[in-house]
Amino acid sequence: MSKNILVVAGDGIGPEIVAEAIKVLNVLQAEGAIDVTLQHALVGGAAYDAVGDPLPEETLSAAKASDAVLLGAVGGPKWEPLHISKRPEKGLLGLRAGLGLFANLRPAILYPQLADASTLKPEVVAGLDIMIVRELTGDIYFGQPRGVETLPSGERRGINTMVYTESEVERICRVAFDIAMKRDKRVCSVDKANVLECTEMWREVAIKTAADYPEIALTHMYVDNAAMQLVRAPKQFDVMVTGNIFGDILSDCASMLTGSIGMLPSASLNAAGQGMYEPIHGSAPDIAGRGVANPLATILSVAMMLRYSLGAPASAERIESAVSRVLDQGLRTPDILSAGMRRVGTVEMGDAVVAAL
Amino acid sequence: MSKNILVVAGDGIGPEIVAEAIKVLNVLQAEGAIDVTLQHALVGGAAYDAVGDPLPEETLSAAKASDAVLLGAVGGPKWEPLHISKRPEKGLLGLRAGLGLFANLRPAILYPQLADASTLKPEVVAGLDIMIVRELTGDIYFGQPRGVETLPSGERRGINTMVYTESEVERICRVAFDIAMKRDKRVCSVDKANVLECTEMWREVAIKTAADYPEIALTHMYVDNAAMQLVRAPKQFDVMVTGNIFGDILSDCASMLTGSIGMLPSASLNAAGQGMYEPIHGSAPDIAGRGVANPLATILSVAMMLRYSLGAPASAERIESAVSRVLDQGLRTPDILSAGMRRVGTVEMGDAVVAAL
Ligand SMILES: CC(C)[C@H](C(=O)O)[C@@H](O)C(=O)O
Ligand SMILES: CC(C)[C@H](C(=O)O)[C@@H](O)C(=O)O
Repeated sequence: MSKNILVVAGDGIGPEIVAEAIKVLNVLQAEGAIDVTLQHALVGGAAYDAVGDPLPEETLSAAKASDAVLLGAVGGPKWEPLHISKRPEKGLLGLRAGLGLFANLRPAILYPQLADASTLKPEVVAGLDIMIVRELTGDIYFGQPRGVETLPSGERRGINTMVYTESEVERICRVAFDIAMKRDKRVCSVDKANVLECTEMWREVAIKTAADYPEIALTHMYVDNAAMQLVRAPKQFDVMVTGNIFGDILSDCASMLTGSIGMLPSASLNAAGQGMYEPIHGSAPDIAGRGVANPLATILSVAMMLRYSLGAPASAERIESAVSRVLDQGLRTPDILSAGMRRVGTVEMGDAVVAAL
Repeated sequence: MSKNILVVAGDGIGPEIVAEAIKVLNVLQAEGAIDVTLQHALVGGAAYDAVGDPLPEETLSAAKASDAVLLGAVGGPKWEPLHISKRPEKGLLGLRAGLGLFANLRPAILYPQLADASTLKPEVVAGLDIMIVRELTGDIYFGQPRGVETLPSGERRGINTMVYTESEVERICRVAFDIAMKRDKRVCSVDKANVLECTEMWREVAIKTAADYPEIALTHMYVDNAAMQLVRAPKQFDVMVTGNIFGDILSDCASMLTGSIGMLPSASLNAAGQGMYEPIHGSAPDIAGRGVANPLATILSVAMMLRYSLGAPASAERIESAVSRVLDQGLRTPDILSAGMRRVGTVEMGDAVVAAL
């Protein structure tokens, strides 16, 4: 039976990079390796411009009806003056909440061909392979009360609330433990249990849940120390699991360790295995429309989609090795360019992956 | 008139490193360069062990009565099983709140003599000199409501609250702008204004306050991007200003970029110029009592104290150049040891600084 993929290209370089990912899907489809139907919808600034809403109702219902969502990127300076409720980011957050995508998987992998791109010394990052599991539908992103109130004195006061229930913590820990079971069986849970009661509870739940995973070595680290350790000795980590806001910060830090955020995909999953897949980089409005954006993170997001939501792990692996071969051939978009390599644009890079498939 | 310094050595390596810093103060005192009186008090785990409270009332009142507080470090695994209200960290947080130390200045400086110690490539960090100004008495550290409640379903729910008032944001921004005026006049304010209303207000107040500082170039960055940019190109920053929790994470990340957190001091100031001074590293229980801890961050904290709270900038500079000369001589504690350098212990390092004064 055909699987439905909703494509939401979004803003900035979104449409360009998503177009290359679709080429890859089309090849696999033409070969009969997969059976997918693509549908397109608006999200983010593009949706706001078209219909005045960063997440139109049609987009959300199409996403709910799909087997997986492929997202480009959202946001840009053009929409920054808008009220927070109308910003492109609200489209993204609305999709996460609306689909219940609580598990955000963000691999930070160093491609050996791109080892030079890292700002860290080669021996510190060679072979880096961390999986960050970030909780995505709770925490201070969604907690109530929130907003800005005016005090009797006339002064304003801004409030956001970090909230987690035990079951929210437990389910994300299970995702992390399950993933670690297929890797090195080590999970580092990141919190601020020495200051924040909410994350002290997080730590307790992590420990309790780990009882079901006797083979997993669970450790705990304060978030400030985790940020230091990522810089000091990132290879100490296998799987990291943390809340929404700490995960936002740490996963960006971890991906920058590789020097190639144009290469890194992500998956956001719900309890039913439905998922949204997107590059971890942003919409890069400064280079939008110039045909120079790196489509590989989006193409690798398609691989994650095939693996986690469409039950096609063999096709996922084919895409991943095609990307690796293209890097071996020396093809580089400007963001990953180094001496002696061949500079290519977005379309040429996509074509090269298709050829390598 | 003699200035009162309250010395709270704290836990782990605290007493060892503070002892070396006191030697430096004693030399300046004997010379007549400064006129200080030292008093000692308990804080953290040491205070809990002695009197069952990580911040005894005498310590807080002595701190209030002092001109400056010199702190070693607090905490350790020994006290982790304690309830959050009795942990060593509560002693530290209580001093910050009790003295109203809202401005935490955390320099991240790369000492040219220690350039090798960084895990980042030399060209990325050479000459690094960032000043992170972290708000220290507000945010999710102190916001109410907080705690863990049990829902009607029997499930627990943990809550902490991020709160800022306009005046709290304004005063920390002024500190950052004043500091930047003596540096490169560039301030990057870090927030998560695309998601958190509290930090959207932060950004508005930063912009409004900057109107009084026409020479300052104020920019804004989301916290996740800031964590990336610190790894990608840290030298782009002059002064960074941010809230308590983001500052906790980013300042640790920034200090680790230098590879030598054993070298970095910090100051926490209140509106009256009273301050608490401490190394940014922790209590390092694993090496406590072995005479190998690096006392330089604590000695440099004394320099900050002389500059910011005791009105003795010349003595501050003397300490800083003495430390630099000791590094030139090739003396290194184990944490900053590299090939060809002379390994020394805590006391020998303190003696060397005294000799170089
Ligand atoms: C765009 C923004 C709302 C989003 C987030 O903070 O989650 C982004 O930074 C991410 O990590 O996907
Ligand atoms: C020990 C802890 C409470 C403290 C903090 O989180 O502020 C520490 O990490 C720091 O940065 O001084």
